[in-house]
Amino acid sequence: MTTTPDTKEFKRSPSHFADRITADGADGWPVEAGRYRLVVSRACPWANRAMIVRRLLGLEGAISLAITDPIQDERSWRFTLDPGDRDPVLGIAYLSEAYLAREPGYTGGISVPAIVDVPSGTLVTNDYQQITLDLEREWTALHRPGAPDLYPEHLRDEIDAVIEDVYRDVNNGVYMAGFATRQRAYEQVATRLFERLDALEERLSTRRYLVGDTITEADVRLFVTLVRFDAVYHGHFKCNRTKLTELPALWAYARDLFQTPGFGDTVDFDHITRHYYAVHRQINPTGIVPIGPDPRTWLTPHGRESLGGRPFGDGTPPGPPPTTETVPPLT
Amino acid sequence: MTTTPDTKEFKRSPSHFADRITADGADGWPVEAGRYRLVVSRACPWANRAMIVRRLLGLEGAISLAITDPIQDERSWRFTLDPGDRDPVLGIAYLSEAYLAREPGYTGGISVPAIVDVPSGTLVTNDYQQITLDLEREWTALHRPGAPDLYPEHLRDEIDAVIEDVYRDVNNGVYMAGFATRQRAYEQVATRLFERLDALEERLSTRRYLVGDTITEADVRLFVTLVRFDAVYHGHFKCNRTKLTELPALWAYARDLFQTPGFGDTVDFDHITRHYYAVHRQINPTGIVPIGPDPRTWLTPHGRESLGGRPFGDGTPPGPPPTTETVPPLT
Repeated sequence: MTTTPDTKEFKRSPSHFADRITADGADGWPVEAGRYRLVVSRACPWANRAMIVRRLLGLEGAISLAITDPIQDERSWRFTLDPGDRDPVLGIAYLSEAYLAREPGYTGGISVPAIVDVPSGTLVTNDYQQITLDLEREWTALHRPGAPDLYPEHLRDEIDAVIEDVYRDVNNGVYMAGFATRQRAYEQVATRLFERLDALEERLSTRRYLVGDTITEADVRLFVTLVRFDAVYHGHFKCNRTKLTELPALWAYARDLFQTPGFGDTVDFDHITRHYYAVHRQINPTGIVPIGPDPRTWLTPHGRESLGGRPFGDGTPPGPPPTTETVPPLT
Repeated sequence: MTTTPDTKEFKRSPSHFADRITADGADGWPVEAGRYRLVVSRACPWANRAMIVRRLLGLEGAISLAITDPIQDERSWRFTLDPGDRDPVLGIAYLSEAYLAREPGYTGGISVPAIVDVPSGTLVTNDYQQITLDLEREWTALHRPGAPDLYPEHLRDEIDAVIEDVYRDVNNGVYMAGFATRQRAYEQVATRLFERLDALEERLSTRRYLVGDTITEADVRLFVTLVRFDAVYHGHFKCNRTKLTELPALWAYARDLFQTPGFGDTVDFDHITRHYYAVHRQINPTGIVPIGPDPRTWLTPHGRESLGGRPFGDGTPPGPPPTTETVPPLT
C-alpha cells in the first residue's frame, strides 16, 4: 500500500524492488531464519496477505514482524506505535530509511508489505504480488509441522487464473473505483467489480473454497479485500451496489475464513477504518472516521462446514499468534 | 434545503420568510385555488414532505408545482429542467428571483420548499416546518373528497412529540453527521441517530404507522429521510452503522409507504443521488455519483398489511399524479 494519487485516474505502480528471497539465494537473499523483518500496516490488504500466509505457514519465528502506524505522515509509514517511535529491531523511525539504505536518493513511493534485511537494514523487496508466493514455495524448510500447501503444484493454473481476475476486478478494482475522478471510469470499474463479486458469489455457493477443497493463496487474496469491504470500500470507495453482508455465500465464506486461525487474528478494524478515512483526504476532506458497521458480526456462525472441504488439507491449523502480535478483541 | 456550510459544525438556519397562507388570510395570504406555486427540488427531503402532503390531500389542482434542477449552481436553485431554462408559470430562471421580489437586496440562503405568490411573483414562505401543517389545517376547503386527516386533533400532542424527536435525531441528524468536521461531534450525532432508529424499529415492529392506526404527518416526516437513507445518507453522510435494509421493521414500513399512492410517486432517486454527491464538494470533492444501491428493492413485498391499520382512515387513496409530475419508473 503506497501513497495515493490526487488527481489522475488511479494506476497502481509496479513494485520497484523485486528481488526475491529464495532457497538457493539466487538474488543474493537466501532464506534464513531470523534474518529478515516483514514490515506491514494492519490497514493494508496487500500487507495483510503476507501476514496471513506467514501465520498459516508458522513462519512467525523465522521472519519477524514490524507493524506501522495506520496513519502515514508526509514521510509515509512510521513506527510511532513502538517505544520511542522507532522499530525496536531495525532501529528506524520511518520505513523510508530502509528504502534509502537500499537506494540512496530514492524518491519513489514507500509501500508495505516490505521485507527488510535486518543485518544491513536495507530493503530487500516490496513486491506484494511475489512475497506470499515465495513464502509458500521458497521458505518450505522453515514451515511449521502441519503447514498447509497454499499453492499446490497441480492447482497452480487454476489458482493463477482466479487470482488474476480477483486482482483486476476486486483487489485493485475497489481502489480504481474509490480514486476515480471521472464518472464514466468509476462506473465501469464499479460495475465490473460487482459482476465479479456476483460470479464469485455463485462459485462459492456450492464450494467451500475458491480452488480445490482446501484453503489456498486464492482464498487469502480474496479475503483481504472482503474483510475491508463493508468497513471502508462500501462507503469510502463508493462500492455501494451492495454490502458484503447482502451477498450470502460470499459473506458466509468471508466469516468462515475470518474465524479460521491465521485470518481474523491478523485483522484490526480500527487500523483499517482510521487509515482509509484519515489518510485519503482527497476523497474524505474532513478525515472523519464513520462509526459503523459493527465488526462483531464477523463472529456469527457461518454454516459453511456443510459444504465439506478440508481447510488445511492434510495439515493442521496454526496455533495462536505470538502475544506481541495479537489484535484487540472485537467490541 | 439550502446551501450547505463549508467548515463550521452544521446548524440549520431558521426559515427567514415565515408568513402563513391561511383560511382567514391573517398574514395577507388567503388560501385561494390557483394563486400559489410550490417550488421544490425532488432531491430535498424538506420539499418532499410538501410534495407528499399535497398529493395525499389532492391539492395538485389548487397549488401548482415547480421542480428545480437537482444541481444548484452558484446562484442556487434553477429551472433548467424547463423549456428555455425558465419556470413556465413564474417566468423566472432562478428561485432567488422570487426571494428578491419579496425582499430586495436579500443575501441569505435560498431554500426549498418555497411557496410563491403567482400574481406578484414574490416569495410567501420558505418555512418548511409550517408548510405541511398549513396545507393540512388551513387548506381544508380545497382538499379532495376522501382526503385523509393527516394531523388529527386528538393525536396532535403525540404527533408533535414524535416529529420533534424525529426532526432532531433523524431528519436533521443525518445532516449533522454528514457535515460534521470534528470526530467527537460526528460520533455523538451518529450514535444518537441510530439509537433513535433502533427505538423507531421497535415502535414500528408492532404497529403499522407511527401514531394511531392511519398515516399522519409523523409518517410523512420520517419517510422522507428513510427513502434517502441507503441512497445517500448511509455512505455520503457516514450514517453507516447499518443500512435501512438491515432494520427489518423500518425497512418494511418505509416500503409500505413508498408503495402507497402519494409517497413513492414523488421520489426520484436520480435527482436525490445526483444532488447530494454532486453538490456537496466539501465532503465529496470528485463529485462522483455512486452506482448503488438498486432502487427496485423499494418495490418488493412488505407484508405490513398483517399489522392492520387503515392507511387513509375513513378517507381514500389519492389517484395517480398529474402526467406532468410523474417520476421515471424504477429501473
